[in-house]
Amino acid sequence: MSGLCSARELVQLGKDVVILEARDRVGGRMLRKSVIDGGWIDLGGQWIGPTQANILSLAKSLGVKYFDSYDAGRTVISYRGALTTIDGPFPPDAAIPTVTTDGIDEAHRVWERFRSLAATVNVERPWLTTDSADFDAQTVTSWLATATNSDFARFCVSNWVLNQEGADPGATSMLFAIASYAAGPDEDEPEHSLFDGAAGQIPERIAEELGDRIVLGKPVTRITQQADGVTVAAGDQEYCAEFVIVAVPPHLAGAIDYYPPLPAPRMQFTQRAPMGSVIKYAAVYPTAWWRAKGLSGASISDGDVLLTADSSPPSGIPGILTGFVAGAAAVRLTYQSENARRHHVVSEIVTYFGEDARHPVEFIEMNWLGEKWTGGAYNAVLAPNTLTTYGPAMTEPVGRIHWAGTEMSAKWTGYFEGAVLAGYTAAHAVLGSP
Amino acid sequence: MSGLCSARELVQLGKDVVILEARDRVGGRMLRKSVIDGGWIDLGGQWIGPTQANILSLAKSLGVKYFDSYDAGRTVISYRGALTTIDGPFPPDAAIPTVTTDGIDEAHRVWERFRSLAATVNVERPWLTTDSADFDAQTVTSWLATATNSDFARFCVSNWVLNQEGADPGATSMLFAIASYAAGPDEDEPEHSLFDGAAGQIPERIAEELGDRIVLGKPVTRITQQADGVTVAAGDQEYCAEFVIVAVPPHLAGAIDYYPPLPAPRMQFTQRAPMGSVIKYAAVYPTAWWRAKGLSGASISDGDVLLTADSSPPSGIPGILTGFVAGAAAVRLTYQSENARRHHVVSEIVTYFGEDARHPVEFIEMNWLGEKWTGGAYNAVLAPNTLTTYGPAMTEPVGRIHWAGTEMSAKWTGYFEGAVLAGYTAAHAVLGSP
Repeated sequence: MSGLCSARELVQLGKDVVILEARDRVGGRMLRKSVIDGGWIDLGGQWIGPTQANILSLAKSLGVKYFDSYDAGRTVISYRGALTTIDGPFPPDAAIPTVTTDGIDEAHRVWERFRSLAATVNVERPWLTTDSADFDAQTVTSWLATATNSDFARFCVSNWVLNQEGADPGATSMLFAIASYAAGPDEDEPEHSLFDGAAGQIPERIAEELGDRIVLGKPVTRITQQADGVTVAAGDQEYCAEFVIVAVPPHLAGAIDYYPPLPAPRMQFTQRAPMGSVIKYAAVYPTAWWRAKGLSGASISDGDVLLTADSSPPSGIPGILTGFVAGAAAVRLTYQSENARRHHVVSEIVTYFGEDARHPVEFIEMNWLGEKWTGGAYNAVLAPNTLTTYGPAMTEPVGRIHWAGTEMSAKWTGYFEGAVLAGYTAAHAVLGSP
Repeated sequence: MSGLCSARELVQLGKDVVILEARDRVGGRMLRKSVIDGGWIDLGGQWIGPTQANILSLAKSLGVKYFDSYDAGRTVISYRGALTTIDGPFPPDAAIPTVTTDGIDEAHRVWERFRSLAATVNVERPWLTTDSADFDAQTVTSWLATATNSDFARFCVSNWVLNQEGADPGATSMLFAIASYAAGPDEDEPEHSLFDGAAGQIPERIAEELGDRIVLGKPVTRITQQADGVTVAAGDQEYCAEFVIVAVPPHLAGAIDYYPPLPAPRMQFTQRAPMGSVIKYAAVYPTAWWRAKGLSGASISDGDVLLTADSSPPSGIPGILTGFVAGAAAVRLTYQSENARRHHVVSEIVTYFGEDARHPVEFIEMNWLGEKWTGGAYNAVLAPNTLTTYGPAMTEPVGRIHWAGTEMSAKWTGYFEGAVLAGYTAAHAVLGSP
């Protein structure tokens, strides 16, 4: 998506562009699939928010509409084996079966503390944040161990991290976590809307515009820089250009063989930006039957399916519940058969929503951990000490090589908006290069 | 080295082997350079210990001798701007200028606590260690924050981590750190001896034996598995074999394009095993003049040059001091010119050893961060949650693909001995495969 946006921008400004795509399709983490009744689901990212100006404007220019995510009704909470429903945001306002009022208060206090730390982040350069060295030398788990004794408060922040990064809080730098919140804050409602016909159609439409400038099935293996240009090798073909924009996740950028070699900090950065671990599920029903029961379709759980969301069209026909498994739980599930996973995931959804959920007419799994040309999802997750040690090297162009991909955007990192922003930034950097 | 050992073993057992080497030389992190007076220095690893049976036996079979590292004399300690010398091991036995007796006692207590945790590690499967989830969800820095209030105690453990892993304690999983100690414990004296003529001659000699089975300058880009064999692509050539042993650091193994794709946990593991960051220096003098001053040549410092060691031949002619810069300090120094780095490093060595150190006749830098076919040094450093989430996937063969390299050995990980062990293990696994 980021590469397509940079290419589209350059083409509109009259430049010649070739897009080398490793897969036999475009779009990377933006990918849709048709389901019954003319419905579509996104196997990758799906949501957008009202302040994400660039993706909204892009969608408009492509004629893609969007609608408000369904948010009426109550949210199911499954915690420590007890089930309840709440109205309004999470953490809840009142006690739930397994959590006392004190536990709820503590969860609010810790979540506000997390958000107040996020408010101190230097979004453009997180490594310059106050106490960045301290926050970057610890995991979110370690921060939580000192911030509170409440298991429920820890669960609330941990669930947010798992859902936001697709990674466990024990794998994630605390500085990266607060920087990630600051880059796409909840108050900007990043999950406010869904696209009519799914987000995955956006790269499809850009690809139609770009036509035969796109060459599929061409994983880039080598980039050679000369004084006056670059040579990009993909399979047995070579492409010569003035500049190259590398728009793949950092670890895949690191897998390319560069001549001359990249500066050491950039090489070492790409070793330290692993992709999160997310398996996305979609359970499709003839209707969004939970709506009539006063449920929003949202659930938050300490089980393997950590979150579900109503991803149906406004009509609720078909009814689509998406669910997410992330972090070590996702890695563990990859050792099971697809059938065993399906059984396990459906069972958890039935626990949350009742027997009506038992027999989806379609049940779709997208295992991003097995996607070699992405390597995981949602995005790169920085382990401790990465931002403070390698931050300045992350986005810096290297001669005629520029970097794109949502990971390269300081604002809205990991979102569509970040992908678009990074693509535009790279395109304009190329235009401004000597 | 690991690949050469597996190849040599297979050849001795009558098998046909081809070794595809990315560089124009063999040996990877084992590499020597000649200096004045017939001396040799290792630009990579150099030490061996008396319990490392496989590398010792290999050296014997190749006719390479070794001698005791020089350890007479006092060790220089530079801490918080004060300089002192101590006799015996570190932490010292008595107060030093900037550390009270209480601080010394606390350092011993914390270091013994670290060692006692290491003694609980399940070396073959560190993820099965008691409390592994807790230790793996925190960095060494976080563990130190709760283990002690003493800055000096923290420094002692941090210096060990920097020296052992080439990575900052804030980047390193506590579980990985204690597992690393357990895999090559100090009591086994892993730095007891040095090779006559340097360790780097060992891969040279194995290469002489293997002859034209070795093909240089052939970075492997793709490995395809069929039912009856593998096809390995390197540049524009393809090699067919019954099995392949991939003997490169994990992140470089992850940069190869596999058909069919590797299992998800193995793919994601290779994104989470970055190389440490070490720049090695050698200051060469006509004689080991520090010996006559009662100094061992060893120094331990909170400066950028965190450690030095006498690496001269037994005669002390020439005199060779090796020095190490690691972690974020090494990354920071890569932004300076080589001249500026030299000036800075020599200045620190002069601080430790006096004006005699000012003018080495040769001054050699080996910046492992810039070595694209290794990607850093000494070895892969596992960030939090990697061992517990991906441990079982790290070494497991995938069909006809087996993994070698010192990172694949549970015992002596990161040492020559680990490289030899992993090479032998892979060779025998291939022989035992159906």
